[in-house]
This record gives sequence, C-alpha cells and structure tokens, in this order.
Amino acid sequence: MHINKRKILNDPVFGFISLHSDIIFELIEHPFVQRLRRIKQLGMSNLVYPGANHTRFEHALGALHLMHSAIDVLRSKDVSISDDEAEAAMVAILLHDIGHGPFSHALEHTIVKGVTHEHLSLLLMNELNNEFENRLDQSIRIFTNRHPKPFLHQLVASQLDMDRMDYLRRDSFFSGVVEGTIGSDRIIKMLDVRNGKLVVEKKGIYSVEKFLIARRLMYWQVYLHKTVIAAEQTLIHILKRAKQLSAQGHTLFAPPQLSWFLNNEFCFDCLNNEEQKREMLMHFVQLDDSDLISSIKVWCNDSDFILSYLSNSIVKRKLLKIKISDKSFGEKVKSQMKKKAQLQFNISEQDVAYFVFSGKISNNIYETNTDEILVLAKDGKAKSMDKASDIDLQALTRKVSKYFLCYPKELV
Amino acid sequence: MHINKRKILNDPVFGFISLHSDIIFELIEHPFVQRLRRIKQLGMSNLVYPGANHTRFEHALGALHLMHSAIDVLRSKDVSISDDEAEAAMVAILLHDIGHGPFSHALEHTIVKGVTHEHLSLLLMNELNNEFENRLDQSIRIFTNRHPKPFLHQLVASQLDMDRMDYLRRDSFFSGVVEGTIGSDRIIKMLDVRNGKLVVEKKGIYSVEKFLIARRLMYWQVYLHKTVIAAEQTLIHILKRAKQLSAQGHTLFAPPQLSWFLNNEFCFDCLNNEEQKREMLMHFVQLDDSDLISSIKVWCNDSDFILSYLSNSIVKRKLLKIKISDKSFGEKVKSQMKKKAQLQFNISEQDVAYFVFSGKISNNIYETNTDEILVLAKDGKAKSMDKASDIDLQALTRKVSKYFLCYPKELV
Amino acid sequence: MHINKRKILNDPVFGFISLHSDIIFELIEHPFVQRLRRIKQLGMSNLVYPGANHTRFEHALGALHLMHSAIDVLRSKDVSISDDEAEAAMVAILLHDIGHGPFSHALEHTIVKGVTHEHLSLLLMNELNNEFENRLDQSIRIFTNRHPKPFLHQLVASQLDMDRMDYLRRDSFFSGVVEGTIGSDRIIKMLDVRNGKLVVEKKGIYSVEKFLIARRLMYWQVYLHKTVIAAEQTLIHILKRAKQLSAQGHTLFAPPQLSWFLNNEFCFDCLNNEEQKREMLMHFVQLDDSDLISSIKVWCNDSDFILSYLSNSIVKRKLLKIKISDKSFGEKVKSQMKKKAQLQFNISEQDVAYFVFSGKISNNIYETNTDEILVLAKDGKAKSMDKASDIDLQALTRKVSKYFLCYPKELV
Amino acid sequence: MHINKRKILNDPVFGFISLHSDIIFELIEHPFVQRLRRIKQLGMSNLVYPGANHTRFEHALGALHLMHSAIDVLRSKDVSISDDEAEAAMVAILLHDIGHGPFSHALEHTIVKGVTHEHLSLLLMNELNNEFENRLDQSIRIFTNRHPKPFLHQLVASQLDMDRMDYLRRDSFFSGVVEGTIGSDRIIKMLDVRNGKLVVEKKGIYSVEKFLIARRLMYWQVYLHKTVIAAEQTLIHILKRAKQLSAQGHTLFAPPQLSWFLNNEFCFDCLNNEEQKREMLMHFVQLDDSDLISSIKVWCNDSDFILSYLSNSIVKRKLLKIKISDKSFGEKVKSQMKKKAQLQFNISEQDVAYFVFSGKISNNIYETNTDEILVLAKDGKAKSMDKASDIDLQALTRKVSKYFLCYPKELV
Repeated sequence: MHINKRKILNDPVFGFISLHSDIIFELIEHPFVQRLRRIKQLGMSNLVYPGANHTRFEHALGALHLMHSAIDVLRSKDVSISDDEAEAAMVAILLHDIGHGPFSHALEHTIVKGVTHEHLSLLLMNELNNEFENRLDQSIRIFTNRHPKPFLHQLVASQLDMDRMDYLRRDSFFSGVVEGTIGSDRIIKMLDVRNGKLVVEKKGIYSVEKFLIARRLMYWQVYLHKTVIAAEQTLIHILKRAKQLSAQGHTLFAPPQLSWFLNNEFCFDCLNNEEQKREMLMHFVQLDDSDLISSIKVWCNDSDFILSYLSNSIVKRKLLKIKISDKSFGEKVKSQMKKKAQLQFNISEQDVAYFVFSGKISNNIYETNTDEILVLAKDGKAKSMDKASDIDLQALTRKVSKYFLCYPKELV
Repeated sequence: MHINKRKILNDPVFGFISLHSDIIFELIEHPFVQRLRRIKQLGMSNLVYPGANHTRFEHALGALHLMHSAIDVLRSKDVSISDDEAEAAMVAILLHDIGHGPFSHALEHTIVKGVTHEHLSLLLMNELNNEFENRLDQSIRIFTNRHPKPFLHQLVASQLDMDRMDYLRRDSFFSGVVEGTIGSDRIIKMLDVRNGKLVVEKKGIYSVEKFLIARRLMYWQVYLHKTVIAAEQTLIHILKRAKQLSAQGHTLFAPPQLSWFLNNEFCFDCLNNEEQKREMLMHFVQLDDSDLISSIKVWCNDSDFILSYLSNSIVKRKLLKIKISDKSFGEKVKSQMKKKAQLQFNISEQDVAYFVFSGKISNNIYETNTDEILVLAKDGKAKSMDKASDIDLQALTRKVSKYFLCYPKELV
Repeated sequence: MHINKRKILNDPVFGFISLHSDIIFELIEHPFVQRLRRIKQLGMSNLVYPGANHTRFEHALGALHLMHSAIDVLRSKDVSISDDEAEAAMVAILLHDIGHGPFSHALEHTIVKGVTHEHLSLLLMNELNNEFENRLDQSIRIFTNRHPKPFLHQLVASQLDMDRMDYLRRDSFFSGVVEGTIGSDRIIKMLDVRNGKLVVEKKGIYSVEKFLIARRLMYWQVYLHKTVIAAEQTLIHILKRAKQLSAQGHTLFAPPQLSWFLNNEFCFDCLNNEEQKREMLMHFVQLDDSDLISSIKVWCNDSDFILSYLSNSIVKRKLLKIKISDKSFGEKVKSQMKKKAQLQFNISEQDVAYFVFSGKISNNIYETNTDEILVLAKDGKAKSMDKASDIDLQALTRKVSKYFLCYPKELV
Repeated sequence: MHINKRKILNDPVFGFISLHSDIIFELIEHPFVQRLRRIKQLGMSNLVYPGANHTRFEHALGALHLMHSAIDVLRSKDVSISDDEAEAAMVAILLHDIGHGPFSHALEHTIVKGVTHEHLSLLLMNELNNEFENRLDQSIRIFTNRHPKPFLHQLVASQLDMDRMDYLRRDSFFSGVVEGTIGSDRIIKMLDVRNGKLVVEKKGIYSVEKFLIARRLMYWQVYLHKTVIAAEQTLIHILKRAKQLSAQGHTLFAPPQLSWFLNNEFCFDCLNNEEQKREMLMHFVQLDDSDLISSIKVWCNDSDFILSYLSNSIVKRKLLKIKISDKSFGEKVKSQMKKKAQLQFNISEQDVAYFVFSGKISNNIYETNTDEILVLAKDGKAKSMDKASDIDLQALTRKVSKYFLCYPKELV
C-alpha cells in the first residue's frame, strides 16, 4: 500500500494534522482505530456540556500531532531520535487508548472487569503487531517502558505526556470550559532531555504550574462534575443490572457484541486462557457507545422495574440526585435513604443498592513519588518540579477526595 | 415547575447560553428535544472531518441564543415585539429541527418517505402543543408563517435566519473549516424591520456577501464533500436493502424503534390516517443515530452479501469510490460500470444498483425569486440584496449542480 | 449633546462593546481619555512581544465592558444597584487609569516623582468633575472607596476587580502569551454580594485559582520579563540623565510638553501648591509615548555620551545585558562591574550608575492581609479564598522577589 | 555573529514564529527593520478600530512566517527551491515594506512626493545589500521580478502573495473585524507551481473566492472606512500646510528627522542625485509615527489657524465631517461648501482648500489583466481564476469607486 504523503486532516483544535508515514496511515484505517470514532472521549459529560461529543479518535490524532511536534523540538535541541524511533513513538501514542471501551472511563471496570484500558490497549497492540508482521515491536517497548530511551515512554505516558497535552486542550475546547486550556505549544517548545529523561526548561515552569492548575480545574469542573458522576454511576448500575438479569435468564434486547459481555463473566485471570481472551477481544472490538445507547433506549420499556427506571433516567436525562461532600456519608444517612427508597419503590433490601449508592472520587494534580516532572535549572541540573518552583507546590500535590451519594429524585 | 432563572449552558461556540423562560427550559427537558442529543448535525461528515460530531441539540441551543440576541437588537431599534412573541419565536427556533431523524439530512427521505423534516417538526410541535395545553400556538403560527409579523418567521426560516447563522458558525467550528465562519454578531447587529419584513442596514452588506460566500464554501467543502456524499448515499442504500430484505422475510437484527421502519412502508398519505401517524411518530421519537450504527455493525456479518458489503464499507470506512463531474454521467459509462460490478460480485442486473449509483447535488447561494434578503438603503427604502450591492451579485444566484457516480473500489 | 444610543465599538478581545449612557460617551470623547490612545498599556513589553502595542484606551473600554456585565449579573441576583450607581461605577472604571503617563508603569515614578498614577487619576477626575458640573461625584466616591456600597469600589479596585479581569485577558491576547488568559466570563457570572462585599460562588473557586496562577505567569513572563526590565530601567535612566543635563543648562531637543518635566522638579508636596499643580497637570495631559520616542531618537545623536549611549540602546534595541537572581547581587560583583564600565567608557565614578544598576522586582499572587477574595460557601457564609479552597493556597500568597543587575554588553 | 538557532517570537496571530537563518536574524536586528516597530500598519484606522495599533514590524514577521510555510508546502510537492532561494525569498518578504514611512499608506505620497513605498523599499534594500556585502542580491532579484523562478516573486507580490495573506488575517485580528479573516493555512496548503508560475489546486477555489470577498470587505469596512479617510486626508493636509508654512519661513516645532522633510521639497527626479538621495534616505530611516504625533500635538497651539485647527481635529478626534457617494460631488456642492467655510473661518479662497476637500477612493477585488490567480484544473492545466470558477466572477473584477467630500463640522 502506498501512502499519499501529503495526507492532511482537519482538526478544530490544531488546524491541520499531517500524517507522516505509511504505517501511521494504515493503522488509522484499521477497524481497531476506526472504532474509536464511535467512542466519546468524555463519556457522559455531554449531558452537562452539550458540546463534549468529541471522540477517542480525534484525541488519538491530536496526541499524534503533538508527538510529532515534540519530536521536532527535541531533535532541534540535538536529542538523538532515529526515524524508526520517531515513528514508533508516534504509533505508540496513536494506539495508547485503543483499549477504551464504550464511554471511555465511565465503564472501564464494568464491561471487562478487572482489566484496565491500558492493558486492553496492550493486548490489541499485540494483535496489530501480529497483523503488521512485528512492525510494532518498538512501539510496544515504548508503551511498556522497556525502551532504552525512557523519555520516549514519558512522551506517551507521564505527568507531562502528549496524552494530557491533547486531552486538556481538546476537552476544554469541546466542553466550552475555556479555562481548562493549556499552553501546549509553549510547554512542548520547552521540552528537552537530560540523562535520558524528559525535562522542561526553567523558564517554562510557569506554564507547567498553569498546566497543573488547569488540569485540577478540568477534573472538578468537567470530569468529576457531580451531574456527570450521577450519570456515569447510573450507567454502571444499568450494566450491572443487565448482567444480573441475563444471568437469571431474563432475555434482554442487545446487539450480539454487547450480548456477549452481558452473558459472559470475563475476568482478569481469563486473559490467561488464550481462547477466552481472543473471544473477548473479538467482541470487544465490535463494541462502542452506540450499542449501549441503542439498547438502553429499548430497556426503558423492559419489564424489570430497576432496569427500566435507570434506563429512563439516562435517556430522558431525569438523572438521580447527587450530593457531594468533603466527608464520607455516614452509614446512618445512607441506610435512611435506602429505607425511603425501599418504601417508595417497593423493592427488596438487596435491590435498593441500584437506587441509592455512594462512593469516592479523587484527584491529585501532581504526584511526587513517581516519575516527577523534571525542570532544567540554570546550572544544567534537572530538579523535580516542586523543588524548582519559587512557590511551595506541596499544596498542589495533596490528593483531594470527595464523596458522593446518589438517590432518586422522588426521595427528596 | 419552577425555573432556575439563571440557568446557563456552556457552548464552545458562543460561550454561555442563558435560558430565559420556563417553557424554554421545560421544552429542552422534554424527550423530543433530548433526542436531538443523539442525532449528529452533519450526518456522515465526521468521516471526512473527524471533529464534526456535534448534534442537532447543540444547534437548537445555538439558534435559540442567536434568536434572543436578534430580538434584543430589534427591540433596541424600537421594533415592537411583545414578551409573548419573543418567547414564541424562541420556542419556534428551538423546535425547528425537532423532526430530524437519524443522521439529519442524510436519511431525510429514506426513513420516512416523502415527508420532509420540516413537516415532521410541525407534527411533533403539534404533539407538544397538546401536551403543553396550547402554549405553543403562537410558535406554530410563526413556524408556519401565519403570524401577523412576518419578520418573526423570517428569523426562523429565511435566507438570513438564525438557523443558518448558527449552523454556519457551528459546522465551521466543529469541522475545523474555519473559512466557513461568518460574522453572525455583526449581521445580527445590523438587522432591522421595515413594513413587517426583516432588513439589513446598508453598511452590513459586505457582511452579508461574506455570509453568502461562506455558505457556498461550506456546501461544497463540507456538506457536499464527495466522500461525504459517497458515505451518505451508501447509508441510503443500506436502508433500502434492509427494507427490501425485511419485506422478503429475511430477519434482520434491529432495535424495535428501527425495526418498525424497516417493516412498515410509511408514506406521505399515511399521515392522513391518524392511527398510522401516531404509531409512526411514536417510533420516530425513539429513533436516533445509535440505532443505525449499532445495527449496521451487526449487518456487517449478515448472510446477505449486498447488505454486508455496504455495511462494512461504512463501519470500516472502506467507502465506495465517487466521481464528481459538472456534467451528468452518460448511460454508457454507467452501464459499463454496472457490468463490471455484475461480473466482479456475481450479482443480478437488478442488484447492481446497490453498488453503482449516480445522482445530482446542487446548491445555490442566493435565491432571488423567493423571500429575498432586503437591504435598507440610505434613503430609508428596502431593496433586494442583489440590487443594493455595488457588485453584480447575479453570479452568486446561479444554481450550481454537480453529478456524482459511486462504484466499488474493486472496479477500478 | 445627544447620544447615539446604539454606539458600538469593535474590540478584538470582547467583540462588540456597547456604550450605555451619554456621560460615558462624552467622557470617551474628552481629550483626557483620548490621550490614552497614545499610551501603550505595556510600556516596553513590545520589545519582547511584538504584538503588545495595545493602549490604555483599549483597556479602559474593556474594563468598562466587563463592569457592565458584572452589574448585569449582580442585578440578576437581586443585588440592588440603582441606575445612577451603575453609571457611576462605569465612569469610575473608565477613568481609573487616566493618570497614567507615557509608557504606563515604566515611567510612573520618573515623570512625576512621588505621585502614583492612581493619585494622578484622582486629580484628573476632579478636573473632569468640575468640567462636568459635579456629575462625577459618585464615581469619585466609588474610586476612593467612600461609597456606602463597598462592592462598587471592589469592582473597580480589588484583588478580583474588572481592571485585572480586563488586563489579564487583554495583555495575554496581544502579547500572544495565551496561557495568561482567564475565564473572566465565568468569574463574573459567579460574582455576588454579601454584607456589601463582593463574593464569588463556591463553584467558581477553581476559576479564581486559575486566575491567580495566570496572573503570576503574566508577571514573570511578560510584565517582569528580564528584557522588558532592562529596557524600562534604561528608559528611566535616560529620563534621569536628561533631567540632570537640563538642570546643568545642556539644551535638549524635546516638545514643550516633555520639556516642562525635564526642567521642573515636581514633587508630591508641590501638589499642595494649586498653581504648580495646575501647571503640572496642564502639561501632563499633553504628554504621551510619542514625545519620548521622538525625543529619544534625537538624543541618540546628542553630544552627551551617556544620553546618546542609552538612547541608542532603546531605539536600535541593543539593550543592556541583564542578570536575574533569587538573591541580591553582592556589593563586590556590582563594584567590579562598575569598575569595568568606568574603564571601558572612560567615565566618572558617579556617572557609572547610568550604565551599571541593580534593583528588585517582586510579585505576590494573592494578598491575605488586605481586602481578601471572599468565597460564598454552601452554608451561605463568605470565607476568605485561601480558607475556602481544598488545597493550601498559602503557597500562592508568598511574595516572590527577584533581583536584577544591568550592565552594558561590552563588559561581558 | 552567531545565531541562536532556536530563536522564537510570540505572535498573537500565528502563535510562535521561528527564525531560520542568520541573515534573517541580523536583518531583524537592523535599525531599518526595527524602525517598523514604530510605524502603525493601518495608519489612522485605530481612530475607528481602537485595537488596530499593530505595526509594520509585526506584519513583516507574519509574512515571513507564511513565506516559510509556503516554501515548505511547495517543496513537499517537489517544486525545486534551493536553500539559498528559500532564504532569499524570506529576506525579500521580510523587507518588502521597509520603505513605508509614518502611518504607512496614509502619508505615502506626502512625505516623499512621487516615490512609492515599494521604490523606497528597493532603495533601502540596496543600502542593506551594500552593508551585507551583496548577500541580498538574490532577494532583490526576486523583489524586482528578475529572478528566473517567477513564482518566488509571486509569493512576495501578486494577487495571492504572502503579503496579503498576512495583512488580511492580521488587520482583521487587530481591528476586531473577524469577518475579514481568511483561510491562509488552507490556501497555502493548496499552492503549487506549473511552468514556473504559482497555481492553486482546484479544490482550493472556494477558499480563494472567500479570500477575495474578505479583502473586499476589509477595504470598505476598514481600510477605506469613511472616518479613516477623513482622518488620513486631514493628516495629509496638515503636512501640506506645515510644508507651506515652513517654505514661508514660519518656524515650526519638529524633530530634525521631520524638519528635513518639511523644509526640503524632495521629488522623484531627486533620486538621480546620489547625494540628495542619501541625505533623504538618512532622514527617512529616522522618521516614524511618533515624530508626527508629537509634533502635531505641539502644532495644536500654533499661531497659524489652519495648522492648529487641523491638528486639533486629529489629536482630540474631532474629525472633519465626511460624505461618501457613488458619484463625484458636483462643483456646485463643493464651491457652496467652500464659500460657507470661507465665511465661517474668515479665510482666503485659496486656504479654504485646507478645510473642504474631495477625492476618490477605489478598490477592485481581482484584476484580470495582470498576473492572474491561476487554478490547477483536474486535467493538469492552469486556468485563470475567473475561468475556473463555476460562478461568474466577472462581477468581482469590477473596480468599485466611491467619492468623498470632507468639510468642518461647523458647516453643517
């Protein structure tokens, strides 16, 4: 296959995105990557931010674009990166999210229990590597941090990677939360490498601070917005109920790609069984947002009250109420609410967990104990970000947790 | 129900959109409007412009926002618009696209044959009017141009309406085709009313010219982009085949809301049958993009070669080839291509029409014979746009048509 | 005088800016305000950021626009603001920078020694108040914080005022340092009043954090950029030398409005002398950037080596070298450098201070001891920003100081 | 001299602009180019569009940036451009406006009578060529269209050159007239070369149409805005009066660089006199906007009523009235107005021409008889733009002229 070497894509965030090699082009055309067109980047966030309908596909292209820029910048600073390495890094970032299922993070631990999307990405990269006759070997080494140049992995996955650079700009752009945007151009121009590790030039430190604060804002204002949490938690409970009903022999409408996951309890250990793994992957790559939406609409009319109630709450956007608190909700509050629900809906003590549920959401802006952001001081030495700043960044490293409690509107 | 009067929505195009009345808020919460969240504004355009995943819901909100601005501007120029009229105009624009089905225009004449989306919008507005105890009476009069103040209808539907103002900006924004953007702010600031008709102040004429040229660009570069045409035509043929197979008793996977349309040949005259109409509408309001995508993925593996071939071409984005020409493709060219297809796929002469098909696409930027754009000259008189400009706009009024021919890649 | 009530100005930052009252319009037309068209907002920053040529005039209009929005928002939340108060607050913000002289802050303490630009603004407002027959009384009370509604003063001058809202967005826009931009729209939408004081709704706290960090970034990256400091310090020394030479009877080219300041040593106490004050003000309102630039170009060829050397360094952008350090430069380093300069240029020990000079620049993002930003917690109580945040903002309140040392390139 | 090869400039329009060679860097540092920092791109337009304070310096950098992109695109399409040629083209565009005097076009024919700014640019390029030891030879050949590759000249000066690409985007950006923006990125991506001439790929034709219409809009809305014309014409008359007074021995305040032009009647033929030419150029390169503004402020108080009246009208923005008409103003109207002025101001018949003056302004969007825009049709042939479009572009090629009449406000 021959590539149109001037292949250019329009991107509302970055303008034009150029594709630079045959394998990139072929991978983008592959059904595994095309599938990402049908998976929303931000799960249910569009229920709060109507513009947030962008997909994992766009994110993959944007991250690819930034990777290309970063490599250009590093090379201009005499960091040695061969053409093969550059291509491998670009392939790695293009495919880094290929293991995301419907609604991205929202259903990450529900569709395929116990397997992270990163792990699924790796499994699918291995599949592609077979299909592409081991041309992805180096990309996989970069992705799994087994490449001799660790900065290549850091560009794909670290606290200052091209993934975050793209998603903050993109999610901010499409949600309309303009404050979440970051100076990705400037940060990338400030990148360099010392001792094989990615560093940021000293004068880029304010941009990095800004990037960290923007990320914090995006977490609490968009990703962990309370209405989004309510919707995504409901989605999780819908799936859970659908699985339970299926296990009980209740027939549910679903396309075969979804049906398989309703009827098979796949687990992390099942990955060891090659046949089970292939069967799961075969169905997984057929699955996307549309299967869930289409099915949930049908389930609105299901005879099971629980499934129908929760499905309607999503489809008609009559979401559960949600309370957020800095402290965990006490058992008393929760059991009172559950009792109310039992009375209201005339359901069993066990089933009430589908209507009243709680949990914890957390975010910390910056981790100090793993793979810190390194800043290149004037003396040529790389220091950890929190030591290089002239303000005390310890504050930003504190993990902030909040607690939520969801319950039906009728209970108020 | 009591409205939170400061209800504000984030919109990436316009920043913040405020909702100004209870009924607007209630209508937005209604399932008929919520459904628009699941219908892409630009059908299959996202196959060419990956960012174009925005929905009819966002468009409805954007047009509402612009209507609010336009009413503000007109009132500031002493155009008399009562609060009820203002609300009615806002409701009319909010609901103007409520009759769009899956993939908007792409399937407009395939899902419900012979009934335009405007007509469906009207039918659904009537439904809502019943539900809302005739509070939509005035909106419906505006929508159908039976309101005594014709400029209100023109704000909803004319060559310079809030619909176009929003969709050009929005489609340009999300597709990344920045050149399609228009100075909607400025055009709206230039609006006025004379003799009940909308007019544009003289000094706004350059902005209107620019708006017309931007619209032309968007048509040929986005809406009628040849790859988009190929995809949308294929989608139409998939539906056609699915209906044909269903009629022949071939069982196809589909959610019930789609199944109904596959198995019922609804027509314009059926609207006269109240029961049939209600049945159709009941299914129609359940239907959205997800049902088609989810089903087409299943159909990729259908035993029917035609259905499976076309479905795969969409899902895997291995689209049919398309040629565009200023002249109609001759019968000879077409029949040669059809013969090739017959040989290649070993299919009947009749079925070849699913693989090789042709048609015409047209656009004219500006119509002179109906509801022209009026410009307010210095002498206080309203002149038609093409007479008020100091360049000869006749050129722009020419209807431009192009012809397309689609055929499988294998035939080249 | 009759106002065109729909007077609208184009602003690249905010789109359209509408003027809402006669007095606003008349004040904008007044020569005191028109003068601001000829005073750059960012002094010498354009030597580093070529786009930063925007003026105090644009800033005044932008701040006016935001004040109008803020008043709208507060009124929608039932904060009582009469039409007169609204107008007075808008006048106050329009005029808040009227006392800036050439190059804004750069020459603030050099042109009129010992008098801040705020004080000069007040003096000029008083002049205008006479001319406008006391119609500015209320504005002056707001400006000087003697108005019974303290939040009106806070909108004009506080840690979250419309001044900062505009200048951060505007300076970021024109410098191209996109990271300095802030979500002014959102912050303004979050404003409210409790006990007469401005507060921010709880959910706006992330936006305020972002605003603080953006301001920090703009300080170090733009306002206190080392090259900008070098240029502005040189400008100060040019003026100082010109004054010294004038005092010595050396005739210097200068337009009369500048000449007066070269030949008169005006001081804070001189303000008590009504005649001296009026004479100074009369000249001050004639003065702008152009007088300095035009004169400095002539001074490039002056017979005085010092004046000519420094003037050339500005006009030809051959700036002094500058070193920045977290610690004060020791006397030894400085005296060594001075000795080098003495040798190099063959000048007196005294004059060397024109070539080698040092100083301190400081910024703190957030002050805790004066007029804190108040956040409206869920319990309805207003808490200081640093107590309301879930991260420890103490870090951000630390005053950061840096030290600079300037010296001629030839000495390296 | 050694270049920092990663020299990057912030530009609010294009983000980051990189400098790619030593000579580019050295030329930007040269006082001839630095002078452009002090010359506004749009003369007096800032009196209507307060944001339009950008300078020729920024425009030169922007055009340089686009030239770099265009060369990249052409090379990617196998157009042969050597490194020397690329550098020469970049130097040519960087310097193309170096001959602009104060207020750019406004005073083009007043400061140095009979010599266009292009000619002055050439003279200054020759000066620089001497100084840079003939390293600008090839740039000058490109600038004067004597280079064997004519497309290089077309990139610098043609109907689709990098000059227009930059100024339309930039002037639109800073004036806030967003509709004037163009898809420069896309047009540049569509460029190619056939037979040594620049061509645009067929599918770029809509972007070019849009570009032409945007340019038309910018002309009438910004460059030839009636208030701008009034201000610029007044400026011309101020200079004329100042020259006349100087010739009569009336001493006027002015810095020496301006004084020379007031006291010397330089003409095109004087260029033949080497000594006169050098003397003129020596003063010319010292001159910028500041000299005029600073002097005109002083002239506000001049004893000559005419000079003082006109100067005040600029400084205080109390501009002359202006009428615009599609037809020339009749002699009768003009002489009536002149008589009124004579009476009002008690001036001589001759002097009245300083108060009442008329003229013609013209623009045509597209010229067909010289250096047409060529479009690359599918058959590989280059056709002129107006023949390649599917609408009749003849309309756009019509030269539109308007007539103006200026007179003092007092006469109405």
